[in-house]
Amino acid sequence: MEFENDVKAVVAEMAEALNKNYSDQKLFDLSLGERLPQKDEIIDFVDELRKVTFPGFFGRENMAYANKEYFAGHKLSLIYDKLFRQIKVALSYKNDAKSYQEITEEAQEKALGFIRCIPEVQALLCKDVEAEYNGDPAANSREEIIFSYPGLFAIFVYRYAHVLYQMKVPFIPRIMTEYAHGETGIDINPGANIGEYFFIDHGTGIVIGETTDIGNNVKIYQGVTLGALSTRKGQQLSGVKRHPTIEDNVVIYANTTILGGETIIGANSVVAGNTFVTKSIPANTKVASTMPELEIKTSN
Amino acid sequence: MEFENDVKAVVAEMAEALNKNYSDQKLFDLSLGERLPQKDEIIDFVDELRKVTFPGFFGRENMAYANKEYFAGHKLSLIYDKLFRQIKVALSYKNDAKSYQEITEEAQEKALGFIRCIPEVQALLCKDVEAEYNGDPAANSREEIIFSYPGLFAIFVYRYAHVLYQMKVPFIPRIMTEYAHGETGIDINPGANIGEYFFIDHGTGIVIGETTDIGNNVKIYQGVTLGALSTRKGQQLSGVKRHPTIEDNVVIYANTTILGGETIIGANSVVAGNTFVTKSIPANTKVASTMPELEIKTSN
Amino acid sequence: MEFENDVKAVVAEMAEALNKNYSDQKLFDLSLGERLPQKDEIIDFVDELRKVTFPGFFGRENMAYANKEYFAGHKLSLIYDKLFRQIKVALSYKNDAKSYQEITEEAQEKALGFIRCIPEVQALLCKDVEAEYNGDPAANSREEIIFSYPGLFAIFVYRYAHVLYQMKVPFIPRIMTEYAHGETGIDINPGANIGEYFFIDHGTGIVIGETTDIGNNVKIYQGVTLGALSTRKGQQLSGVKRHPTIEDNVVIYANTTILGGETIIGANSVVAGNTFVTKSIPANTKVASTMPELEIKTSN
Amino acid sequence: MEFENDVKAVVAEMAEALNKNYSDQKLFDLSLGERLPQKDEIIDFVDELRKVTFPGFFGRENMAYANKEYFAGHKLSLIYDKLFRQIKVALSYKNDAKSYQEITEEAQEKALGFIRCIPEVQALLCKDVEAEYNGDPAANSREEIIFSYPGLFAIFVYRYAHVLYQMKVPFIPRIMTEYAHGETGIDINPGANIGEYFFIDHGTGIVIGETTDIGNNVKIYQGVTLGALSTRKGQQLSGVKRHPTIEDNVVIYANTTILGGETIIGANSVVAGNTFVTKSIPANTKVASTMPELEIKTSN
Amino acid sequence: MEFENDVKAVVAEMAEALNKNYSDQKLFDLSLGERLPQKDEIIDFVDELRKVTFPGFFGRENMAYANKEYFAGHKLSLIYDKLFRQIKVALSYKNDAKSYQEITEEAQEKALGFIRCIPEVQALLCKDVEAEYNGDPAANSREEIIFSYPGLFAIFVYRYAHVLYQMKVPFIPRIMTEYAHGETGIDINPGANIGEYFFIDHGTGIVIGETTDIGNNVKIYQGVTLGALSTRKGQQLSGVKRHPTIEDNVVIYANTTILGGETIIGANSVVAGNTFVTKSIPANTKVASTMPELEIKTSN
Amino acid sequence: MEFENDVKAVVAEMAEALNKNYSDQKLFDLSLGERLPQKDEIIDFVDELRKVTFPGFFGRENMAYANKEYFAGHKLSLIYDKLFRQIKVALSYKNDAKSYQEITEEAQEKALGFIRCIPEVQALLCKDVEAEYNGDPAANSREEIIFSYPGLFAIFVYRYAHVLYQMKVPFIPRIMTEYAHGETGIDINPGANIGEYFFIDHGTGIVIGETTDIGNNVKIYQGVTLGALSTRKGQQLSGVKRHPTIEDNVVIYANTTILGGETIIGANSVVAGNTFVTKSIPANTKVASTMPELEIKTSN
Repeated sequence: MEFENDVKAVVAEMAEALNKNYSDQKLFDLSLGERLPQKDEIIDFVDELRKVTFPGFFGRENMAYANKEYFAGHKLSLIYDKLFRQIKVALSYKNDAKSYQEITEEAQEKALGFIRCIPEVQALLCKDVEAEYNGDPAANSREEIIFSYPGLFAIFVYRYAHVLYQMKVPFIPRIMTEYAHGETGIDINPGANIGEYFFIDHGTGIVIGETTDIGNNVKIYQGVTLGALSTRKGQQLSGVKRHPTIEDNVVIYANTTILGGETIIGANSVVAGNTFVTKSIPANTKVASTMPELEIKTSN
Repeated sequence: MEFENDVKAVVAEMAEALNKNYSDQKLFDLSLGERLPQKDEIIDFVDELRKVTFPGFFGRENMAYANKEYFAGHKLSLIYDKLFRQIKVALSYKNDAKSYQEITEEAQEKALGFIRCIPEVQALLCKDVEAEYNGDPAANSREEIIFSYPGLFAIFVYRYAHVLYQMKVPFIPRIMTEYAHGETGIDINPGANIGEYFFIDHGTGIVIGETTDIGNNVKIYQGVTLGALSTRKGQQLSGVKRHPTIEDNVVIYANTTILGGETIIGANSVVAGNTFVTKSIPANTKVASTMPELEIKTSN
Repeated sequence: MEFENDVKAVVAEMAEALNKNYSDQKLFDLSLGERLPQKDEIIDFVDELRKVTFPGFFGRENMAYANKEYFAGHKLSLIYDKLFRQIKVALSYKNDAKSYQEITEEAQEKALGFIRCIPEVQALLCKDVEAEYNGDPAANSREEIIFSYPGLFAIFVYRYAHVLYQMKVPFIPRIMTEYAHGETGIDINPGANIGEYFFIDHGTGIVIGETTDIGNNVKIYQGVTLGALSTRKGQQLSGVKRHPTIEDNVVIYANTTILGGETIIGANSVVAGNTFVTKSIPANTKVASTMPELEIKTSN
Repeated sequence: MEFENDVKAVVAEMAEALNKNYSDQKLFDLSLGERLPQKDEIIDFVDELRKVTFPGFFGRENMAYANKEYFAGHKLSLIYDKLFRQIKVALSYKNDAKSYQEITEEAQEKALGFIRCIPEVQALLCKDVEAEYNGDPAANSREEIIFSYPGLFAIFVYRYAHVLYQMKVPFIPRIMTEYAHGETGIDINPGANIGEYFFIDHGTGIVIGETTDIGNNVKIYQGVTLGALSTRKGQQLSGVKRHPTIEDNVVIYANTTILGGETIIGANSVVAGNTFVTKSIPANTKVASTMPELEIKTSN
Repeated sequence: MEFENDVKAVVAEMAEALNKNYSDQKLFDLSLGERLPQKDEIIDFVDELRKVTFPGFFGRENMAYANKEYFAGHKLSLIYDKLFRQIKVALSYKNDAKSYQEITEEAQEKALGFIRCIPEVQALLCKDVEAEYNGDPAANSREEIIFSYPGLFAIFVYRYAHVLYQMKVPFIPRIMTEYAHGETGIDINPGANIGEYFFIDHGTGIVIGETTDIGNNVKIYQGVTLGALSTRKGQQLSGVKRHPTIEDNVVIYANTTILGGETIIGANSVVAGNTFVTKSIPANTKVASTMPELEIKTSN
Repeated sequence: MEFENDVKAVVAEMAEALNKNYSDQKLFDLSLGERLPQKDEIIDFVDELRKVTFPGFFGRENMAYANKEYFAGHKLSLIYDKLFRQIKVALSYKNDAKSYQEITEEAQEKALGFIRCIPEVQALLCKDVEAEYNGDPAANSREEIIFSYPGLFAIFVYRYAHVLYQMKVPFIPRIMTEYAHGETGIDINPGANIGEYFFIDHGTGIVIGETTDIGNNVKIYQGVTLGALSTRKGQQLSGVKRHPTIEDNVVIYANTTILGGETIIGANSVVAGNTFVTKSIPANTKVASTMPELEIKTSN
């Protein structure tokens, strides 16, 4: 009982201390709950996108009896509704310059613009499945890739997030790619530009920075970083091209690091694994770090 | 209202575009929902396996009052049922050569074969726990390892998936290991052969390829890739040994890459961290890349 | 029917085999279910901590109408209750030396001690948000960081787990950080000491060992290992300083490995990416591996 | 510990006793789980029916942007699939006379027949809403009725269950109406025939027997039983008309009991509350039990 | 395959038929989903009310360590937020006369008015618990009543719904009482006026109409109807007093029906079970139907 | 903003008012959460009981491959554990006279005693299924009864609750029967004594009081009350026989009320519907109220 009172006293004191922190920090505002996009709603949105993009793979329904147009039309309406609501919230946040009406209209336009892109993005993703299948001898079927490959999941989320990034929708693109990052360990910034037939194998640890440009038929393995040379200047670098350009048909093997906004890996080149690249590489070349001699000693 | 009609028009147009994609892609079939294995059922199956393998650790029941035979017998029946159903689905997919009856019988045999392996795999996993405990000074107890080590979880899933891989069950082994990959960042292909007392520390970024052979008492740290030299030939390489062989008692430190189907790391050898190995290493050796000189400049 | 009997026979045989394993292994005990901490309860505890630390960000409620003191006070009481119960369980496990009463009191004291630290840890985390924002040009707002950056999530979990680690609470700190590890791919041992304004970018594959010391204003990128030179001696090394010391204002770029308990990276130094460091670096220096020459060949 | 062993012994003994019961009872068969319809699937089916019948009322989606045909078409496909699967299970149970193929075809036909009836049943239900609204002065709006009136819910479930009853689908119609009975306290046997504009108020305790015939524009209040005179002959009465006939425009007030297969309440009649009727009533009459005198005594 | 096409054709035809129904019925509007109150939100609101009204009884938390003011304050804020949002939706529906701003303000005022009533309603409910305990010899404790008596649950929901009814909040009061009706079989219209120390036993089948007035210390048993004499005039009767008045200290035993807006049961009277009353009864009387003679025949 | 402050002020004032109520009422105690039995745990316990009593009917598992003894043994262990924990909590509440050790032992004995009764109760329930099947011409199969008849569910819960009632376990028996009451509208007090082959049809509104005695082969229809003559003396009547005795082979038709502890319905008698009985009826008789004349007037 005495102890119970100690707890009450400490709780009271700490509640007061926390409140002081809350007031000191301009970040915290107990009304944020309905003023920021909802992560779970965005994950639902991604799940619906996946169903419409890869029909039949996710969900238990046998839709064989459905006119496919009903299926697609119904899902697109749902996706529009979910996206429109979250964009409206995202646009409203700290945006006093626009009226509710203006924000609503902007959200409608952006959500509608997104819907217009779905068939095109789906077609791109089908090419990515093909790239995964052709590139991976361990893949038993295209179905297995759609079903269980983390690389494809990360690309799928990135391609749709990129559409929203290009429309300058705040918060949502990054929430989407960080969701994929958490599920797969693959961190593709929604700002990156990535061409057709993109191939990722294993994928854990891949980082593709915001201003990266990647051409067609590029293959990337686990642990590859396409990053910035330095971020010491922090927010001053916002908007500047800081990440490399990878041209068509390039292969980058595992754990290689390529840095710098002016670094270009020319078309058809192959970058070996565990290579560190900070300057441009011409087209049609194979590049590798001179592998350090292996020192081999008989143990004990 | 006008805008609402715009949305309807765009939805209709995009639904049509999607349907065209659906028809063009042979992959998509709205009846897949009941024709492919269910990922959530397979995760349930893994969860039940975990309960029977590490009794008492997962789940809130106090089973102290149970005759352990009831516990094990009941769980094994459940596991058989779940597995049998999913194997039947997996075997049926695109398999017109066999009758429903044949597929059912094959599924029964495979599921039963799996049940027969459980005690043996459990015994192996107990050795893995021992290896984790002895190898990690940060481990406070064996319980902590079973409870919270991602390395043990990845090995646990791999060992059971490997049994199904050997039986040539489609889809399910890979769904299992990709589930573990998603949870832990450790990607062990179910085809790899791994001996007793296997030790993984931290684990994020580990990739162990399909045709890897690993002996007993091997230790592997985070970021290690046991991979293929090149996968340029894609599906033509299917079935070829492309990944290295690691003999008994080898230790491979963090972020090292070992590539190639003919690469053998001989018994009792130690491979240092951040090393890149593409050729065989004899037994009883210590191997490291000649570490490049560190260039050190006074900053500013 | 015949087959069904086969299954029954195999299940019976295997149940017996498993029971033999259960008896042979001292680890397994069907009563563990209520004698070990509950992972889901600990995750709930972490979620409540997150709500009280970043009020308004997680959860859908609009708490604008609340006296903030009610909010904080109520949450702290909940957190106390959840933590107290789990600590009591954790302390009881294999602890016959202490009476139920002693354990209860110890759990109360530890849980109360934890509550006392919350405002201070929150203040630290606000500084970490600031560091993330200033250091990452891709960050659009502080809200985005709190909302979706895995680095901040890992630091948040670590900072609270560290408080429990220092109190020598068993099981719980590691369950907490392994939860964050699973979500983010960032593995910070709760024993590490980490100063103010800690910055992690991307994060996948980061490993920070148990006896690491990190100063203020340190920045660490994906794939960095702060590890031990060798763990061959296993449990004998328990408690020994095995991991490096990183002084104030150090930057460590991606995929660099720094090993050893006597290795000190001096203040204000910068360690380039893909560098392998096993000895101390003085303050105010830039350090990089001499990059191996790139071998460049025209392909085909 | 001793007690734990007692528990084990008792559990073992009782497990044996239960197994003896299981064997003695022909009813019990551990494989029933997949051989009987699934109650939760049937409830899902009812929920989907409700969404397609009262579009916009149940579920949070704003479907305003949908072409309504997509909505209806997609839902009907889902409903077909769910129903077909459950009918197939229901028809298979203890039905050795028919082959799997025959049962599948029969299930397809019945499920398809059901789909054909949906628009017609929906039109009927709209008339029931109208009847509820016009008949209940406490109803504020038609929306309130659809949203929250148990009477309408019971009628909705009955009307669809009746379609399946007429097709002689086993199990499912009764599972449906017992679901509504559990939710509302209104027990309408799926075999009853009920005309248009049916009105139920409050509803708790209403029982409408299997062979009841009810005309158009009938109103029934809580606690009314339309039952059999005697069921002493039990299963011998199966199929015989045992419950009354209620003609058009009849009103039956609360807690009245009308019994007997030959009892007819003629058109436009009104039966007062708490009346007990076992013989026919001509059309255009008001009927009430001669109310017993109230005995009134000053208390104490 | 042929059959599959049949299904598609029927689905298409029926989708069209349903859409015709949708258009013909003015009720249906696919945008209702976000324009009507959410039943599940209202149930959450009721659950939170229950926690704050009967603190400690519902929910697993041990709140012993909480300053009770934090608990109450936090819950009240939550309740305000949930209620405010639902009232806003409810007020908006088909209400074009008022601006968004006006509706928001009205919702704020009503929600705030509700909060003001909570302590008073709680005090009333404590008196109802007391009445239940004193009146029911089968009640073992007050805790059992709060915990498991359906009568108390129905009264609890009614008392709060009545507050909203009096404020003329649309939809929500009825959704609340129909929720209780579904759970308990007790149907108390939110419009009824009920005094202190109200006692319900068993409760199934009780109906208390919208314009009923009930005094203090009244006891009512299962199956009692306090209803209208006739509702033939339907919506024309809206607002008219149609249900009886029950004065203080009256007891009404099971299955009795009392009808009519002018019927008054005078104070301290007792109405026996299975009695049918359509006219007023003076105070201090015992009233019963003259029980009909029991006809007793030796069977068979 | 101003309004927000109003809300805060009102919330603060009302939180204070509630706290005053909390303090005034001895009932409320914020630590009750862990000191009262958990309703959801008790419902889980009932669900497990149902699975072991009617194996194969509830749950989706195909247990055909299971040795039935494993199934039963495992379930019984689970049931023991769940029940033991809840009994311990129930016995602890306001029971300072006994030590923790005494209460634990008492809970063990009672839980074990319950397990011993399960096979016997199961055998009784099989007889009840038989009675339902033989008595109801609308029943298509015994499976349908087990699957969907509310009467059987209420009897099932009552029979097990009665075992606990006889052991004087507090809270739990009533929580169990009120759960069934909520699901079915059938309120059987766990104290009642009910013989073999008990039959309930429809069931809504049935009330069977605490001290009722019912013989073998009794049939009861919806709306029947077996109640007390008066409960005016409230808690003073606790323990006194207040409810009737129904001897073997009696049938009681719908909506009949039988009151009084000294009222005995003799063996083989039939009580008609809507009859009101307050005195004993000899054996082998048919009893009915002299039905009041029906007054029949031509309407309008």
